[in-house]
Amino acid sequence: MPKRVAVLLAPGFEEVEAITAIDILRRAGIDVLSVGVYGKTVTGSHRITVLADVLISELKVSLDACVLPGGGPGSANLAKSPAVCSLIKKLNNDGALIAAICAAPAVVLAPLGLLDDREATGFSGTEKKFPVSTTFKNQPVVVDGNLITSQGPGTALLFVFAIIEYLVGKAVADRLRQETMWPEGKIV
Amino acid sequence: MPKRVAVLLAPGFEEVEAITAIDILRRAGIDVLSVGVYGKTVTGSHRITVLADVLISELKVSLDACVLPGGGPGSANLAKSPAVCSLIKKLNNDGALIAAICAAPAVVLAPLGLLDDREATGFSGTEKKFPVSTTFKNQPVVVDGNLITSQGPGTALLFVFAIIEYLVGKAVADRLRQETMWPEGKIV
Repeated sequence: MPKRVAVLLAPGFEEVEAITAIDILRRAGIDVLSVGVYGKTVTGSHRITVLADVLISELKVSLDACVLPGGGPGSANLAKSPAVCSLIKKLNNDGALIAAICAAPAVVLAPLGLLDDREATGFSGTEKKFPVSTTFKNQPVVVDGNLITSQGPGTALLFVFAIIEYLVGKAVADRLRQETMWPEGKIV
Repeated sequence: MPKRVAVLLAPGFEEVEAITAIDILRRAGIDVLSVGVYGKTVTGSHRITVLADVLISELKVSLDACVLPGGGPGSANLAKSPAVCSLIKKLNNDGALIAAICAAPAVVLAPLGLLDDREATGFSGTEKKFPVSTTFKNQPVVVDGNLITSQGPGTALLFVFAIIEYLVGKAVADRLRQETMWPEGKIV
């Protein structure tokens, strides 16, 4: 059975971060659901409108991971949804992977206590909203147990490669690095 | 007056490549139109559906550049559109920037003669369809006059930074590298 991942979309989501996750996780053979939090038609922070696969109220399946894109308004709109907050807490309690990028670690995960006593990163400056017990690391991706965090659109592919490696192994992540023409091992 | 760029979307377009262009060019202050070639609702090669801003038949404005995403079926669907082919030829004759990534250089530009006697790159293996007069370069981005080509989803941000530098200058491109948290100068 393939791993199943939800990518949560609220108005103002960061498009590169969300679309990179959906696209590249599907390339890895993962069953990805794009989930509309307030509706199936969702417009991102740069005025790109996408159609989500399902509404969060329709999400009855078990999940191996959820991905939280950034975008200032997008992350805030995720954080204020009770359905999102209860889904994340349930998945974390079940030991599923929680993956958040850009504003999402500080805006969505910190208030839920999911950064407490963890290593994490996020968009530049958002670490000011991290709890004092969080060890902030200024690097593109941080993996700490079932928590993967990342910095922004420019680190979205590295974030997704880390999610793939966590869920289905390094060989698949390496295949995706090659298949996407990622400039592996080069200075960018 | 801001620079104006069309990103052409046909069914089966590569989502990371198209969305990265629309999102990051807008962040650079460029007026971006996402253009549906066969309809306004367009589904990419990884089953992500986006709503285009305009139809190609509605595109009456002057353009400083057009961006051609890859995706096997997406590029082939661009190439078989007479409206796309005449738009690209007109823009090239006018000296506008032609930017193509992944399958698009080989599948869209080569048959139009736009790679003749130029330096270019593309998705691994697609160089076999390049004309003999094209100098293929195995690097993430190649800039040759008004032609910018790139390799795939993993080089999409480098492609867009090159487009930004061409249209509005290096300072803006450098700002976007920083703003997106691109791991500038690091080995990826």
